[in-house]
Amino acid sequence: MTSNETAPVAVIGLGDMGAALAGALLKAGHPTTVWNRTPHKADPLVEQGATRAASAAAAVAAAPLVVACVLDDAALRQALGGADLDGRTLVNLTNGTPAHARVAAAWAAEQGADYLDGGIMAVPAMIGGADCRVIYSGPRAVFDEHAPTLGAFGEARYAGADPGLAALHDLALLSGMYGLISGFLHAVAMVRSAGEKSGEFTTAELVPWVSGMTAILPTLAEQVDSGDFATEGSNLGMQAAGYANILDAARDAGLSTELMAPLGTLMNRYLEAGGAPGNDLSALVGMLHTTGA
Amino acid sequence: MTSNETAPVAVIGLGDMGAALAGALLKAGHPTTVWNRTPHKADPLVEQGATRAASAAAAVAAAPLVVACVLDDAALRQALGGADLDGRTLVNLTNGTPAHARVAAAWAAEQGADYLDGGIMAVPAMIGGADCRVIYSGPRAVFDEHAPTLGAFGEARYAGADPGLAALHDLALLSGMYGLISGFLHAVAMVRSAGEKSGEFTTAELVPWVSGMTAILPTLAEQVDSGDFATEGSNLGMQAAGYANILDAARDAGLSTELMAPLGTLMNRYLEAGGAPGNDLSALVGMLHTTGA
Repeated sequence: MTSNETAPVAVIGLGDMGAALAGALLKAGHPTTVWNRTPHKADPLVEQGATRAASAAAAVAAAPLVVACVLDDAALRQALGGADLDGRTLVNLTNGTPAHARVAAAWAAEQGADYLDGGIMAVPAMIGGADCRVIYSGPRAVFDEHAPTLGAFGEARYAGADPGLAALHDLALLSGMYGLISGFLHAVAMVRSAGEKSGEFTTAELVPWVSGMTAILPTLAEQVDSGDFATEGSNLGMQAAGYANILDAARDAGLSTELMAPLGTLMNRYLEAGGAPGNDLSALVGMLHTTGA
Repeated sequence: MTSNETAPVAVIGLGDMGAALAGALLKAGHPTTVWNRTPHKADPLVEQGATRAASAAAAVAAAPLVVACVLDDAALRQALGGADLDGRTLVNLTNGTPAHARVAAAWAAEQGADYLDGGIMAVPAMIGGADCRVIYSGPRAVFDEHAPTLGAFGEARYAGADPGLAALHDLALLSGMYGLISGFLHAVAMVRSAGEKSGEFTTAELVPWVSGMTAILPTLAEQVDSGDFATEGSNLGMQAAGYANILDAARDAGLSTELMAPLGTLMNRYLEAGGAPGNDLSALVGMLHTTGA
C-alpha cells in the first residue's frame, strides 16, 4: 500500500477549479486546508471538512504539499508572496505558458520549495472522475513522491523534468480542441445558412465523420516523425484545389471564411514554395516553424 | 427484394475515385460501362468485366443511370457536352460547391435528364465499404428509385430536394475535418518545438482528448438551435483570456500562430461587440454570418 490518504494538503485558490480540487482531496480522505482571497468561497468546503486558513501563509504552514490554482501567474505571486515555502512542495495548477512555469519554478527554488507544474485536461465537474487527466512536469522524484496524493484529481501523467512541459502539452491539447471547435463553428454556420438545424447535422453527420477522421491523426503524426510525407490518398495538390470550394461556398452563403481560410493559405504557400504536391497534410507542420527547426 | 443488381450503369471519369465507384458497381453485379478521357485508365476495370465506351456519349447511351466523377464542373460539361442525356438520370459526384450543383441541375433539366448531386464522405479505398457514406440531393423520387444501386458505394444519405444540399453538407463536414487537422498541425508543432516526437503525443494524448471533446459538440449544437448559449462551465470570457496563452506559447516556441489566431480574434471581437462573457463558444456561430441571418 502506498496510500497517502492521511497526507495533509493546502489548496490556494477556490475558483470553480480550485474548489473542485479541494473537494476531491477531501473525498479521498486528505486533511485539507483551504484559502481564497474572497473567504466565503471556502464555506462549502469547510462544511465538507476542510480547514479554513486565515491567510495563504497560514495555509502553506499547515501542509507540506501546496496545490495552487489561481487566475494567473501574477495572482500566484501575490497570493504566495508572504508565505514560507521552504521545504514545501508547490504544485502549480494555474493556467499559464511554459515560460510562466519556468519562471515560477525558478522562484519556488529561491524559496527553497520543490516545484511541479500541472495542466488540467478537464473541466471542474470532471475532477476526481475517471475522465480527468492532469499532466505534470518537474523533477521525477518530486512527482513520484506526490503522485498518490495527486491521483485524487484523476490520472496523473508525467511529461518530463522541464517544468514548462506540462503547460506545453496542455496548450498543445487545447490547440487540438480549439481546431475542432473552429471547424464545428464553421460547419454549423454552413448548414444553418440553408435553414437547417445544427443538432441533427452535428449528431448524425458531423460527430461520426470527425470521429472517423480523428483515427487518421496517428498516421499523419508518423509521417511527421519519419519525414516521409508521401501519400497514395488525397494529397496536398488535390486538397488545395478542393479547399477553394469550402471558401467559395461559405462566401456564397454569406459567411465569413476567417476560421477556414488560414489552412488553405498555408497549403497554397507550401505549394508555391515548391513543396511536393504528392505529400500529405502532415507536411504542413514544418511550415509553422518560423525560426530554427 | 428491391435488388437492382441487373440495372446497367455508366461511369464517366476514372480517376482514383471514379475507378473505385465503377469497381464497386461491378462487384455488386451491375453491368457497368466506363469512359475516361485517357482511355487506358479503363483497362483494370475492363479486366473486371466493365465495358469500355469509345466516347462519353456512347457510355451515356449504354445505361439509363449515369454516374459522373470528374475533376470539376468544367470537366463535367466538357465530358457530357455531346451526350444525349434525355431520359437519363445523371448522378454527379464531382467535387463542387452548392452553386455548381444548382447550375448542373438546371443544365441537366435542359437536357431532359433527372439529376442528383452527391458528396462522397470517403477516400477511394473506402468505397463499397461499411464506413463509406455518400450524401445525395435532388428530387426525392429520383433518389428513392436509384438508392438500391447507389447503395453499392456505401450508405446513401438523402439531404433534401435542393440540389445544392449534398455539396453544402459535404463542404460543412470537410470544414469540420480541416478544423481538426489545423488543430492537430499546431499541436504537433508545439510538442516538436520541445524536441518531442509526434507519434506518442498524438496516440496517447491528443486522440483521446479530442475524442472526448467531440462528444461535447452536440451540446454546443443544441445551444445554437435554442439560442440559449449560457454555460455553467468555462465561458467565453474565461476562454478568451486563456486563449492568449496558446498564442504566447507558440510565439515563444518560434511557431506561427496563423492557424490558431483566428478563433481568438473572433472571441475578442464577440466580447468587444458586447457579447455576453458568460456564454459558451457556440455563441460565436452568429459572428460568422456576414449577411442576413
